[in-house]
Amino acid sequence: MSLNQKLTAVLESNVVRNAILGVILFNAVILGLETSKPIMERAGGLILLLDRICLLIFVVELVAKLIAYRLQFFRKGWNIFDFVIVAISLAPAAEGFSALRALRILRVLRVISVAPNLRRVVEGFVTALPGMASVFLLMSLIFYIGAVMATKLFGTGCPQCTPELAANFDLWFGTLGRSGYSLFQIMTLESWSMGIVRPVMEVYPLAWMFFVPFIMMTTFAVVNLLVGLIVNSMQDAHQEESVASTDAYREDVQGKLAALELKLDQLIAARKD
Amino acid sequence: MSLNQKLTAVLESNVVRNAILGVILFNAVILGLETSKPIMERAGGLILLLDRICLLIFVVELVAKLIAYRLQFFRKGWNIFDFVIVAISLAPAAEGFSALRALRILRVLRVISVAPNLRRVVEGFVTALPGMASVFLLMSLIFYIGAVMATKLFGTGCPQCTPELAANFDLWFGTLGRSGYSLFQIMTLESWSMGIVRPVMEVYPLAWMFFVPFIMMTTFAVVNLLVGLIVNSMQDAHQEESVASTDAYREDVQGKLAALELKLDQLIAARKD
Amino acid sequence: MSLNQKLTAVLESNVVRNAILGVILFNAVILGLETSKPIMERAGGLILLLDRICLLIFVVELVAKLIAYRLQFFRKGWNIFDFVIVAISLAPAAEGFSALRALRILRVLRVISVAPNLRRVVEGFVTALPGMASVFLLMSLIFYIGAVMATKLFGTGCPQCTPELAANFDLWFGTLGRSGYSLFQIMTLESWSMGIVRPVMEVYPLAWMFFVPFIMMTTFAVVNLLVGLIVNSMQDAHQEESVASTDAYREDVQGKLAALELKLDQLIAARKD
Amino acid sequence: MSLNQKLTAVLESNVVRNAILGVILFNAVILGLETSKPIMERAGGLILLLDRICLLIFVVELVAKLIAYRLQFFRKGWNIFDFVIVAISLAPAAEGFSALRALRILRVLRVISVAPNLRRVVEGFVTALPGMASVFLLMSLIFYIGAVMATKLFGTGCPQCTPELAANFDLWFGTLGRSGYSLFQIMTLESWSMGIVRPVMEVYPLAWMFFVPFIMMTTFAVVNLLVGLIVNSMQDAHQEESVASTDAYREDVQGKLAALELKLDQLIAARKD
Repeated sequence: MSLNQKLTAVLESNVVRNAILGVILFNAVILGLETSKPIMERAGGLILLLDRICLLIFVVELVAKLIAYRLQFFRKGWNIFDFVIVAISLAPAAEGFSALRALRILRVLRVISVAPNLRRVVEGFVTALPGMASVFLLMSLIFYIGAVMATKLFGTGCPQCTPELAANFDLWFGTLGRSGYSLFQIMTLESWSMGIVRPVMEVYPLAWMFFVPFIMMTTFAVVNLLVGLIVNSMQDAHQEESVASTDAYREDVQGKLAALELKLDQLIAARKD
Repeated sequence: MSLNQKLTAVLESNVVRNAILGVILFNAVILGLETSKPIMERAGGLILLLDRICLLIFVVELVAKLIAYRLQFFRKGWNIFDFVIVAISLAPAAEGFSALRALRILRVLRVISVAPNLRRVVEGFVTALPGMASVFLLMSLIFYIGAVMATKLFGTGCPQCTPELAANFDLWFGTLGRSGYSLFQIMTLESWSMGIVRPVMEVYPLAWMFFVPFIMMTTFAVVNLLVGLIVNSMQDAHQEESVASTDAYREDVQGKLAALELKLDQLIAARKD
Repeated sequence: MSLNQKLTAVLESNVVRNAILGVILFNAVILGLETSKPIMERAGGLILLLDRICLLIFVVELVAKLIAYRLQFFRKGWNIFDFVIVAISLAPAAEGFSALRALRILRVLRVISVAPNLRRVVEGFVTALPGMASVFLLMSLIFYIGAVMATKLFGTGCPQCTPELAANFDLWFGTLGRSGYSLFQIMTLESWSMGIVRPVMEVYPLAWMFFVPFIMMTTFAVVNLLVGLIVNSMQDAHQEESVASTDAYREDVQGKLAALELKLDQLIAARKD
Repeated sequence: MSLNQKLTAVLESNVVRNAILGVILFNAVILGLETSKPIMERAGGLILLLDRICLLIFVVELVAKLIAYRLQFFRKGWNIFDFVIVAISLAPAAEGFSALRALRILRVLRVISVAPNLRRVVEGFVTALPGMASVFLLMSLIFYIGAVMATKLFGTGCPQCTPELAANFDLWFGTLGRSGYSLFQIMTLESWSMGIVRPVMEVYPLAWMFFVPFIMMTTFAVVNLLVGLIVNSMQDAHQEESVASTDAYREDVQGKLAALELKLDQLIAARKD
């Protein structure tokens, strides 16, 4: 048994797995405590130290896996997932860029790659995605067209507006990106009328002719996504469940019928003799 | 091979299709860039020129198709769809009417008629519509009745209101159209209570007796639409999936049983001889 | 053929049905026009006259039906529906009570009892109700308990509040009815946090321990209602669709098998002779 | 028949059950009346007395059940449910702690344990829970990670903010708990954009890169919960419904085929003689 095989055996043992799971959960608590000012004032040094130790353990595990599996390591999606998450955690230490520091909590996502039942849920999500690709593409198309139209119609200056309203129009529909964000908000139905469409209608009374169909179309597309998801997982569940027993029964019936026919043929042949 | 047949072959070749798809996507980018003021200031002339070239290509393609298929062209729904979209793009150039210019982005919708998987999704939407016609009719009825009632109850002057509230009442329920829009907002549950019903209840304390049942009825109708959609697509999926194999099996069993009966009849007949 | 039978034949003829449908739709337009002030100023007398004529036609139709079917009339739910709607329309004329006048538009609901496809949708709704009775009962229970708790916790005076907040607390949770309305608003997720729970939490920081579980429970109950509805109509659809053909096939197979057995028995009996 | 058996027979008789149900419903009304100030002023003493009598009846019933079933009592979940609810009602009388007094209305929940159809609905809810455990775990993970990130990014001081905005940031994301509550609000889509994300984006223009994916992920997870629930109850319904009749038919066919084979074997054997 080579060193690689030994290392693989150790890494895949239940003890090591559970230890890693424990470290992840412990690290989650540590990262949660870091958000509390009074605790950081009292024991900030200890907490940061413990966080570093956790990170060190993850790095050691990852390096061990890289040695054990070599380039095979990158064949599994979950390994790449772990690799990227640990890499993100190492980045801010080098650059000191503040927003990246908040990404360190993503390390807790490693629970998913370690716990098999969470893994299955996420894999279920991911396998559902391709079936929704066409509807997603269509949604992006609707959003792009909607954003260009909204920017052209409401975002390019508004001479007859009050200054306050003109500022709002610019904030909501001033650029393609802002229009996209506003349309996303409108799709979620959050303050779409009182917050956005009624003020717009003060200046452009026909604005509802753009927004109401947009809401109907996106809602209908989302509903179709949902229906597609339900039908798909229903079919999967249905097939797994009943097909096996039905197939066994059918083969049995067909086999017995064939046997009966064979025997009758024998009888007829014997008769003719 | 006539000229028409040659033209048809060229128009339906993959090269031309992909070229048209490329032009549509390129045009989408161009129309997106048009919404950016800094880009238009620097390169506005070029962008408008490129947009015109794209439109020219669409017109040429459409004319070629009209020559190739003649009146058969208008038999396919998707051809009419393309025709209307290109026609809309040509209209504003002639009239210079500002809102119509924003409709030029609808050209990007041609992606749907060109890409087969998007086409299938939209066709799925459209085939789902007739099954929902009755529920839609019922919804329109509820909306019409609701709009008339709301206008009569809350929209026709409010002597005991403060001026501000009276102005809001007029804005929300002053005409049939405004009531319809407000009821659509209420159906989407956006600010229905804090924004509209609570202020109304300051003057008419029993207003909830109108709005709460309205919300319940429309929500229930929408839920029934959803349930109908799910059940329909489930049945379609179910039938396609299992019926073929079941039918084949059943025919096989019935055939074998008939063969057995025939042979037994022979045996019995032989016996009698 | 007695007078009653003749009257029944006339009332159930397609001509009379379509005429009544026409009168209902015409009346709907008339009642819609009544909401428009400029139109009422110009042609108010004519419109009110036309409305009275429509009502007269409905009354005549109803009286004719009462004569034709006598007490059998009240056996059909839809007849009672028509009777109540026309009765409501007659009431305000006698009393002159303003809110009741708005109920006259309910006459348009008669479209449902006349148009068979709308009728079927509503009958579908109504047959779905008993299956949801238990969940509805449970929802009412949650609402009643929630309303009593909210009134006790937040509605009975708030000494440490600002006057404005105290007024809001009284408006939101002052009585059982107000709490019920507020909880309905919270269940629909409208402004539940920014509008109600955050202000409440300024005074009672633990208020989320009441509202968040309430939202989760009612949402979960609604979801279960939805799931129940889907499963029920799926089963109905499934049974209707496949059971008929499956039963025919099964009877056929069982019949053929029995015939084969009979013939074999004959053969065996003949052999023994 | 021992005393215990007699007591059990009495407790499980329909008369006692219906009497208890009556007391629960009467108590519900009493507790509802307690929220009304004018009624309490007039008849407060009587109402409090009636409430005490109801509680006394519940305690007597519970003690009787404890005597009848002894430790077996705690084997049934619904008995524990009743026990806890009555215990909660007794607690405040001893301590006089105001918020606990509002919990007395929970006694009405005993309707569920007494009425069999409500019991079945709740049992249906509870049996659905384990199947959703993985998705719930994943949701908690997303919430924990989201709360830590939001607190780090937006909650830890904001030097470039106006004082008002800084106070809001602290209120929304100042601690892990506040971030969790705000994220729950955002997940329900209540005022997520106009109320929270737009103000945050005034200071951190890229904040949408955190909130929009958060909304998409939680919505997608909720949708998957819903789909899972539907598929599960569909499968349960499906199996119960059709499996029994199919199994009976299949056994019948297989039995008849076996009988045919046996008889043919007899014929062949007879032939060889």
